[in-house]
Order: sequence, then structure tokens, then C-alpha cells
Amino acid sequence: MLKTKPAYTVAVVGATGAVGAEMIEVLEERAFPVERLVPLASSRSAGGTVGFRGTDVPVLELTKESFAGVDIALFSAGSDVSREYAPVAVKAGALVIDNSAAWRMEPTVPLVVPEVNPADAARHQGIIANPNCSTIQMVVALKPLHDAAKITRIVVTTFQSVSGTGKDAMDELLAECKALLSFKEPEPKVYPYQIAFNCLPQIDDFLPTGYTKEEMKMVHETRKIMGDQAIRVTATTVRVPVYVGHSESVNIETERKLTANDARALLASAPGIQVYDDPAHRLYPMPLDVAGKDDVYVGRIREDESTAHGLNLWVVADNLRKGAALNAVQIAELLIR
Amino acid sequence: MLKTKPAYTVAVVGATGAVGAEMIEVLEERAFPVERLVPLASSRSAGGTVGFRGTDVPVLELTKESFAGVDIALFSAGSDVSREYAPVAVKAGALVIDNSAAWRMEPTVPLVVPEVNPADAARHQGIIANPNCSTIQMVVALKPLHDAAKITRIVVTTFQSVSGTGKDAMDELLAECKALLSFKEPEPKVYPYQIAFNCLPQIDDFLPTGYTKEEMKMVHETRKIMGDQAIRVTATTVRVPVYVGHSESVNIETERKLTANDARALLASAPGIQVYDDPAHRLYPMPLDVAGKDDVYVGRIREDESTAHGLNLWVVADNLRKGAALNAVQIAELLIR
Repeated sequence: MLKTKPAYTVAVVGATGAVGAEMIEVLEERAFPVERLVPLASSRSAGGTVGFRGTDVPVLELTKESFAGVDIALFSAGSDVSREYAPVAVKAGALVIDNSAAWRMEPTVPLVVPEVNPADAARHQGIIANPNCSTIQMVVALKPLHDAAKITRIVVTTFQSVSGTGKDAMDELLAECKALLSFKEPEPKVYPYQIAFNCLPQIDDFLPTGYTKEEMKMVHETRKIMGDQAIRVTATTVRVPVYVGHSESVNIETERKLTANDARALLASAPGIQVYDDPAHRLYPMPLDVAGKDDVYVGRIREDESTAHGLNLWVVADNLRKGAALNAVQIAELLIR
Repeated sequence: MLKTKPAYTVAVVGATGAVGAEMIEVLEERAFPVERLVPLASSRSAGGTVGFRGTDVPVLELTKESFAGVDIALFSAGSDVSREYAPVAVKAGALVIDNSAAWRMEPTVPLVVPEVNPADAARHQGIIANPNCSTIQMVVALKPLHDAAKITRIVVTTFQSVSGTGKDAMDELLAECKALLSFKEPEPKVYPYQIAFNCLPQIDDFLPTGYTKEEMKMVHETRKIMGDQAIRVTATTVRVPVYVGHSESVNIETERKLTANDARALLASAPGIQVYDDPAHRLYPMPLDVAGKDDVYVGRIREDESTAHGLNLWVVADNLRKGAALNAVQIAELLIR
């Protein structure tokens, strides 16, 4: 367990990536009690510096010796790195908060969204997993409705931004737009197909069922975080040419009836949620507006007459912040309280 | 009724718009028996010419006298123009095929998708309505599944391209991208908000229920075209920064069980459909690929375990062609046979 200290040595593994950079920013913004920041990266990315509280902190190469004296290690360098180095960090005495998919479904690893299942964090055995970005924003929005009316089924379709893939993907979208505006042929490398002015109905690899891993993360992680294996979920996840901010069209069925007004009231008083839902004034959440914001934005709340107790919602959040870096830092905050 | 002739005088109302231009192209491509083409537009757009079979045909101003001698009038100039001029054209002896929403839900006006309900066309009283673009591609994909297993409920989320709004919207997306790449502030005029690198969860105006008119078109038009008022439909329609091609994430529940393989086989043998569904080879439909194509493309066919008999589908089509111009010309073809 994490000892209570006035300040902590915090390592960020993957410090030069899109999420790693955001983690460092969030630690600073929220005045997390950092005594020493240890930015770690692969040998390819180490050697530079990252800014933190007005100083340039050198980015060190990740090795098995990196975690000596580290209290908290925030990982965001992909599943392979997490699988290899998280146990090393734990052995060295660090608490690991892992943003990859590597440990999420391990029964002994808590999967935590602080607004939803904060108590689970205490049950950790050295590693706490940060859920998938698409799942986090959905469960934040659905938890108050589940508590009030018991959700039985979720049909979700996502509109996911390229920053979810990483910095290279953001560069690729920009390069493709520039090429197209100069009448040149874009050359996709990160994605299998052009993402500019297109929609790619594939995120992560395909499974034999025809679903992608991303789609099944939304099924399994939702149940684990909500602590309810009875919730039925089906997902279609799609990449869209947006830089930052994931949007989700969420259809739910509930055991007890909720009106749109009931849902609006429940969401408006829940933590971490902003209700942006005033059609008369064209108020609804959009990825462009929520980029850089901490909360999960919910709008387009409508009763669904096609089923006994149904609701449609439009849920938007910054996938790098609440979908990744912010949620990880919030988990750390739970443990230092 | 339309008299059988070797060739017809065909008027295109809204000839300079995105859909009107596509109508003229489709008439030429499909060698529709046109004796004389009469391109019509508002006084603002009249005066120029449109190309047809290698000649420049002058665009005339639309007036109440425009329809003398016209056999078939294809309308695509918005609901107000259709409401005013379609009865004038009918009175002058023309058969009207109207792409606007003005007449679609009139009980005496057939709403026709040739692959789905061709027989309805014969019941016209002068006007036949062309359905909404999002509805057309969905019903083409769902009809073979409905015939085989009876669809009871549809949950659909759309990813609609800017060409569905018109030429101005396509120009706006381009102008916004150019501005952003030059570090200038985009100035949205056609849409209420920036569409470049964004998603707008609003298409058409809002109704008091919180649904948009576009969403309710998908509910009511689907039932009318399928000839089945029992099908329950709920829709969320979203504008995405794509030039041409609408994509749809469609979840259906059926009375009888259909496996994904059943669905693939039914769709592969149905008219007007291409099944692009081979995850192992990353084969799935994308708007960029279907732009300019006639068929409706279906992929990502998956069994939905969250309900007794469920399926997920990803349906993509060129909204200007099958979603508008092509479907209108196909209706005309039904009537000259």
C-alpha cells in the first residue's frame, strides 16, 4: 500500500507520448504532491526534456532499474511495456496505475473510474488499471442512471478522435489534409486507410466474432467497473477525422422508466458531468468544445419510444484527459487521501 | 399516368445544386431516354449552362410556365419549392419525382425505393416522393433481412457527409480546413458550428421531443417504405467532416434468429447491395470508397449477443447518388418500363 507522505516520487512511463504529456500537465494543473518527477521513455524517445512546474526535466530511458525510490508509476506506453515493466515497478515498491489494456481484465487488478467505483481502488495488489477511453466517458455518464433505474442493455456507437491512437496519428491527419489541399495523394502509415474526410469502422484488431478488441473492451470493462455482470452491451467503434475528443451515441434500456427530464436532473447533480442539452439554443456537446476540458459532457437526451424504458444520449469527453491522463491522476489522488 | 414514348422531356428543378447536378449526370450515365433536358433553377442560379451528352444546355429560371410539355420533373430544390411548384408541374401534365421532404408523408404520395417497394410507384397521383438519403440506404440494406426474419426494432446512428447539406456546405468544409491550416479562425455560415475536425449532433431542426426532423424522417419513412407500421425505430443523426458518403451504424432486433452468415448470404444476393465484410483482410465499407458508386455497401456484420435475435451492421452509400439522384432516376425508370 502507498504510504502517506507530504509528496511523492512519480514516474511517468511513456512521458513523450500524447497521453504521457497530458499526464504531466494534469499532475501540475491539479497540484498533485510531486516531490520528484521521473519521465521515462523508450531509448528512441529518451534524451530530451519535458516541462514541469517551470523546469525542464530530463526524459530517462526506461530500464528495469528505473523504479528505485518511485512511489507512483503512471504507465502509458502500450500493453507490451506494461506487461513487462509494471511487475518490475511493483517489485521495486511503486504503485502502478496503468493506462494500457494489459491488466484491465485481471481479476486481482481493480479497474477504476473515481466517479463510479472509487472503493475498488483500495483492493489493489500493486497495479490499478485505467479503463479504455471510450469506456470511461460512457460509465461516468451512465452510472447515475444505472443507480436510479438499473440499466439492462446498452447499444453504443462511437466517433473516436485520432489522438486516441497517439501523436503519430494526429500528425497523419494533418499531413493528409495538407496533401489533399495541395492535390497530392495522402500516404496513410498509422491507419490502414486515409482518415482525412473519411470514417474508419475499425479500432484495434478484429476478433473471430467480427467485433474489434475496442468494441469488446466496452462490453467487458463496463461490466467490471459498474460491478454488474448482468448489463448487456453491444458496441460499434469508429474512427473519425477529429483531433481530440471522443463522441458516443448511447442507447440504453432500463428496468425502471426514466423520463428525459429525470435523466437530465440525475446527470446534472452527478460528479464529473456537465449537461449540455438545450436544443432550442442549439446547445449540445461537440468534440471541438470539450477538448482540454475535464468533465464528461452529455446532451441530446431523448426518450426512446422504440422500447419500454429507453433513452438516447450523446456523450462527449476529452479522450486524453478524462479518457486517460486525468482519470489516472484521479486514481492516484484517491490513494494519497 | 406517364404515357409510353420512345423518349421524354425531363425537367430538373434545382439543376445547379449538388443533387440536381448528380441527377443530370445519372440520366446521362444510365442512358435514360431523354428527348429534351430542361434544367431549371432559381433566378439567382439561372443563366448558366449544364453539360449533358456533350452539349451545353441553358439553365432556365423556374416559373409557373416552366412545365409545358414536360413529361417527368425531377425536383431537388428544397421543400418550399416542391410545395409550391410540384402541383403546378402535375397540373401541366408532368410526373413529379420529388427529392424534398415536402410530400413524403402524404398518404396519397408513394415513397419509393425501387429495391424495396417498387409496386408502390404505380399508385401515384402525379407525385412520387424520393425518401431521405439516410433512410434510403438503410432500407435497401434491411429489406432482405426484414423479409427473412421480420425486423422488430432498429437503433441507428448516422455519420452524414456535408454534401447532404449541399454545395455550400462542401465549400464551407474546404474553407474551414484551409483557414485552420493557415492558423486562421474558421467562420461557419452554413452550419451553426465549425464542421472541420468536429462532429455536429444535429441535422435539420429540433422538435419538442428533442429529436431532430432528420431523426424522425428515419422513423416514419422507414415504416412507410417497408409497409410495416410495427417496426420500431430510434435514430441519432450526426454530421461528420466527410465530403460525400453517409455511414450508418445499424443495430436490429428480429423476430426469428439470423446468424451473421445468414445475413451476409441474404445481402450478397439482394439487388443494389455489395457486401464488403472480411475483417481478416480489413475489408469494410468507408465513405471515401463508396463516393461515386451506385450500390449500398454493407460490412461489419456481427451477431449482437446483448439481445435474443440481434445484429449489428455498418451501411455506407453515396448520399448524392443512391441517397438522392440515382434513386430518383430509378423511380422514373420503373414508370417508363
